[in-house]
Amino acid sequence: MLEQEIIARYFSRHSTDAHVELGVGDDGAVVRPPDNSKLVITVDTLNEGTHFHANCSPEHLGHKALAVNLSDLAAMGATPLWATLSLSLPEIEHPWLEGFSRGLYSLADRHGVKLVGGDLVRGARSISVQATGYLASGQALTRSHAEPDDLIYVTGTLGDAAVGLRLLEEAEKHAVSEKDRDSFLLHLNRPQPRVEVGREIAAFASAAIDLSDGLFLNLEQLLQMSGVGARVDLEQLPLSDAMQRWQQADADWDLVLSGGEDYELVFTASPQYGEEVNNVSTRTGCPITEIGCIALGGELELLQAGHRYRPPDSPGFDHFG
Amino acid sequence: MLEQEIIARYFSRHSTDAHVELGVGDDGAVVRPPDNSKLVITVDTLNEGTHFHANCSPEHLGHKALAVNLSDLAAMGATPLWATLSLSLPEIEHPWLEGFSRGLYSLADRHGVKLVGGDLVRGARSISVQATGYLASGQALTRSHAEPDDLIYVTGTLGDAAVGLRLLEEAEKHAVSEKDRDSFLLHLNRPQPRVEVGREIAAFASAAIDLSDGLFLNLEQLLQMSGVGARVDLEQLPLSDAMQRWQQADADWDLVLSGGEDYELVFTASPQYGEEVNNVSTRTGCPITEIGCIALGGELELLQAGHRYRPPDSPGFDHFG
Repeated sequence: MLEQEIIARYFSRHSTDAHVELGVGDDGAVVRPPDNSKLVITVDTLNEGTHFHANCSPEHLGHKALAVNLSDLAAMGATPLWATLSLSLPEIEHPWLEGFSRGLYSLADRHGVKLVGGDLVRGARSISVQATGYLASGQALTRSHAEPDDLIYVTGTLGDAAVGLRLLEEAEKHAVSEKDRDSFLLHLNRPQPRVEVGREIAAFASAAIDLSDGLFLNLEQLLQMSGVGARVDLEQLPLSDAMQRWQQADADWDLVLSGGEDYELVFTASPQYGEEVNNVSTRTGCPITEIGCIALGGELELLQAGHRYRPPDSPGFDHFG
Repeated sequence: MLEQEIIARYFSRHSTDAHVELGVGDDGAVVRPPDNSKLVITVDTLNEGTHFHANCSPEHLGHKALAVNLSDLAAMGATPLWATLSLSLPEIEHPWLEGFSRGLYSLADRHGVKLVGGDLVRGARSISVQATGYLASGQALTRSHAEPDDLIYVTGTLGDAAVGLRLLEEAEKHAVSEKDRDSFLLHLNRPQPRVEVGREIAAFASAAIDLSDGLFLNLEQLLQMSGVGARVDLEQLPLSDAMQRWQQADADWDLVLSGGEDYELVFTASPQYGEEVNNVSTRTGCPITEIGCIALGGELELLQAGHRYRPPDSPGFDHFG
């Protein structure tokens, strides 16, 4: 089966629309951005052995490869438009391609993203998605404009994906109910990018970043780029019911602070926008929790019961650190 | 050294400009397309072992990874604007990154392309570049509108890169002068994307494709998508001086027809545009040669001295064919 035929079978579902004049199948895709808009571009790659195990469900991978990019767009306050896919595979396995494309298109359709092009090549299994969105507000939400006294918020809950990963790696060590296990794995395998929240907070938030590498590392990046410090109260960190039960059995703040793969948004906003934050949470159905505030000093201070808490042993995921 | 620091050191050279509001370093890049323009998007991946050898010069790789994408933009008639890079590496080697980024930026600067973002991850060595351009003419040059009686043209010369690859793989078998060897390897290692030609022919050409997989396979793709056939005269195919000498020693039309990696453009145009084709060639300094014409019938007929010539044994490069 030729490369072209594989692409036609698995990756040509999306037809043209107002923003896509020509999709998959030529030397390039032809797209039409909304008039006079600013675009946001992001790219993220998942490699077998580094980001996922060889036996990982292809449907989860298809979902996740796009989700991590939509999460980046959300952190910039952008509305997704289209994406491209570069897929390296050691060989053609039809059930794998079937599952992978199902996972990818299912998430794409939920957010109105069109797959407009890509590349299919032989190599170690690797998935690179590049996604483009536009700024409806005209204003990007960067990492670099947090101000002292701004409040710090986080969407969803923290640490679930990290527990999910731990359960995959050392299942026998942990006694967890089936329901909790499913919940942890769902966070790991099918993260839900906070696209609507990102778009809505762009109007008033001062800075944002998405949590790919853990709250501690990602928040530090935001603080560094904004030239500010912060105080975060561990007791305010949002934990799922499953995570609360996990913490009772085996309290591990490092997992919550630096486990990574949460794909939630951390953002900052002036205290005057408290009402707006509540409204966004209500409209989108996404929990948003205040976890601390920005300070003048240049470091990230963790507090527990009013006392200073040590930084996590490993600050977060870094490929070459 | 952290991922962030490596990116800052090697991949943050481009500053903002009229089209780039925010480059490398945040969750995504913020770009501003030319007003009311159509964009062309393309992505191409090079994998070690599949597309290049482990000992390939990193500077050549940096050049080539971008060149193959600019070649796709050229084949669509688009003017390059910006690009992203996803780089997978088994480990950090500073001389390699130094050379790679030098090759990449050198070509980017020549064509006014800005590197606006990317991803650096651990994995088997793999380079995925995604490039975006805009259609100054408002009209994309696709593969699907060649018409019977259109003439077929090709830029530059054919087969040099394929000989270069053969010389790398079995140097001892071939007696070639040092000068010719350098010329072949230059075509292989530093293909020059035909960006100016692509932009200029977009005004009158009926169809185009770039030659990544060999003239025979790529022209067949164009014919298939246009629903036409073609006659191509082998004696009209443009050969470099080095290639003419190679053919004298060891006539091998398969190498010329299906060697791949030429990264030249094949395009079709109504015979009335002969003068325009000459003008484009003069203005850009790029040789353009008429090699045949489009026919009503649905196949690609090769002719030599007026007789039918057999199709190449292997039609061209296909990853999974």
